[in-house]
Amino acid sequence: MEYKISNKFKNMKPSAIREIFKSLGRPGAISFAAGNPSPESFPVDDFKRIANDILTQEPITALQYGITEGYAPLRELVKERLKRVYSIGGESDETIIVTGGQQGIELCCKVMCNEGDVVICENPSFIGALNAFRSLGARLVGVPLNEEGMDVLALENALKSNPSTKIIYTIPSFHNPAGITSTLENRKAVYALAQKYDVLIIEDNPYGDLRFSGENVPTYKSMDVDGRVVYCGSFSKILSAGIRVGTLTANKELVSKIVVAKQVEDVHTNVFFQMVCYRYIKECDLEAHIEKIRRLYKHKAELMISTLEKYMPKDVSFTRPQGGIFLWCSLPEGMKLSDFIARCSDKNVFVVPGTAFLPNESEPTRSFRLNYSMPTDDEIENGIKIIAQVIESLR
Amino acid sequence: MEYKISNKFKNMKPSAIREIFKSLGRPGAISFAAGNPSPESFPVDDFKRIANDILTQEPITALQYGITEGYAPLRELVKERLKRVYSIGGESDETIIVTGGQQGIELCCKVMCNEGDVVICENPSFIGALNAFRSLGARLVGVPLNEEGMDVLALENALKSNPSTKIIYTIPSFHNPAGITSTLENRKAVYALAQKYDVLIIEDNPYGDLRFSGENVPTYKSMDVDGRVVYCGSFSKILSAGIRVGTLTANKELVSKIVVAKQVEDVHTNVFFQMVCYRYIKECDLEAHIEKIRRLYKHKAELMISTLEKYMPKDVSFTRPQGGIFLWCSLPEGMKLSDFIARCSDKNVFVVPGTAFLPNESEPTRSFRLNYSMPTDDEIENGIKIIAQVIESLR
Repeated sequence: MEYKISNKFKNMKPSAIREIFKSLGRPGAISFAAGNPSPESFPVDDFKRIANDILTQEPITALQYGITEGYAPLRELVKERLKRVYSIGGESDETIIVTGGQQGIELCCKVMCNEGDVVICENPSFIGALNAFRSLGARLVGVPLNEEGMDVLALENALKSNPSTKIIYTIPSFHNPAGITSTLENRKAVYALAQKYDVLIIEDNPYGDLRFSGENVPTYKSMDVDGRVVYCGSFSKILSAGIRVGTLTANKELVSKIVVAKQVEDVHTNVFFQMVCYRYIKECDLEAHIEKIRRLYKHKAELMISTLEKYMPKDVSFTRPQGGIFLWCSLPEGMKLSDFIARCSDKNVFVVPGTAFLPNESEPTRSFRLNYSMPTDDEIENGIKIIAQVIESLR
Repeated sequence: MEYKISNKFKNMKPSAIREIFKSLGRPGAISFAAGNPSPESFPVDDFKRIANDILTQEPITALQYGITEGYAPLRELVKERLKRVYSIGGESDETIIVTGGQQGIELCCKVMCNEGDVVICENPSFIGALNAFRSLGARLVGVPLNEEGMDVLALENALKSNPSTKIIYTIPSFHNPAGITSTLENRKAVYALAQKYDVLIIEDNPYGDLRFSGENVPTYKSMDVDGRVVYCGSFSKILSAGIRVGTLTANKELVSKIVVAKQVEDVHTNVFFQMVCYRYIKECDLEAHIEKIRRLYKHKAELMISTLEKYMPKDVSFTRPQGGIFLWCSLPEGMKLSDFIARCSDKNVFVVPGTAFLPNESEPTRSFRLNYSMPTDDEIENGIKIIAQVIESLR
């Protein structure tokens, strides 16, 4: 039969990043394309012991249907930690467990947006969120990023000229893909604009715990005085990505709608790993574990930055992240990104072209994303050298 | 702030079943309200051993991001079993892993339906699917069930008078909530109508493996000559519900769109339990395990039916399922369902009122759903006796 695909999905394509991954099997390939946490960040031995304990002591709870909101003891610990670490969570807020941060973002848009409603996002932004918004028929409007965060003038223009804006989507800390952390002043200005134009903010903070230099900046949610911020957290980058356990914190009224939306998507997040996360936080030292990951990524980021500084031509710019797992690199003026990507691929080095992260995919860009959590030290040094040579060869 | 909830979610409410569960904590409560598999169906010891093996031998695969389509070795085994047991899967078909059968149903509707498009479903039908369709702005049209399955004349009328129908959603075997299995003739007639009016069929078959009497009936998917059937399977009722691992099989072209939709919902299903299911099928005897569950449910169903036959007034009708975990019971004419439910609740016995399963919730019904997989033998005997007394007391 001929499938009459819905209007929203007719033109949806798999993420460009997925396609890149198909090349990574080649022998000797050096990949800076991943979005994966380092496997060294997985507490394998603790998980093994905890898994055995759960399946010995509480197997039925772990294997039976659970409630949509999530495993209550985990929710309590998450609330406690969000309060302690991020000053998040007031009387009128609720925290639920979702199937990875991705689901929280998607559910929030699903509950808020009619087809054609606008979501304002940073330009560039996280492709998984952009595609989620697209899949729900929302219209994306990008606002450029500068070193302080979202360009506030451009944001106000976007809000003014798009009265059907429902949401500002932002990754304020250790931005994916840009590696930028917005300043407190910038966050205050963005929040004030959200108030002025009465729109919601989705604060996507999967890397928030991974600061390895600089000073903490308060989260949007900690400054939220009128239930305007939906905070999306994740265990993917601090415990394990494959378990699909994330968190969402927002005003209770909004959360009750999000729970209904979650129920029809997957009933609930897998109970066993909610229990694993609970026991890990209860029995182990999560903060010490995070500190270990921070040290690892600090080393990787510093190595990548110093290698870039050493080998990269002066007219190549790149961001210097204070945390997270990505930095953002821009080719010299006049150089074609597609030529660069093709030649890197010939040399068996893989990066993600900036086009993948654009709200408007047909916009021109000379930027690309580099990941430093997955490659080895040798791969970072050799790969960056090759990238520098490729750029010189394209002059 | 005042939330401007999307039109689709403005009127969505949590499932009525969830609300019932809040009463179940009472001491001495007898619940026939669950949709849960018996905890005896969970292979706890095998899972414990396998979990330990995976976290010893392949921890990184289990804890790192996976691909959206699912863990390839599990997909191969699922394909092999679907072929062997159900004659499902041709050259043009693909099977992916989803986060429970619920996600497969929701994704399929998401990819196919624009707002206002019609999904035809059985009346009554599975509340999780109905709410998924509602949440996507699809319009539900119910077709009555008779002992053969969907009323074919009513189905053709519904198709004729709703030209924007995209999908027929059916639970052909051991129907939830009705406990009915449609006949081969009925399935052929429904398939022919789907061809005539060029609509897709979602075949939801989470209970398919749980036949305990009668003869197998071929699945819709095994009769599918033009890629018209999306087959949704599940491990929830044969291995564990809390792990959220289901399967979806459909034409490759359609699956490629469903994969895009899944990617933006939760990236992928948790890898660890995909590996657990794979190893369980590989190393253990799934068919023998299913046979054990069948024997358990045969016993429970026969006990419930014989108790109903013994105590229920003659003007109460009920279905006699050949598998699955539910039967469907109807009060005598003139009796009010809400009075019955309230009085049962006073007596600490809980059932799900038929209203929860109606495509049109304001339609009158005198039916309710009884589950026999969760209660003990004593609870079945005592609970049914109480229900019979409640009915007599309402004359």
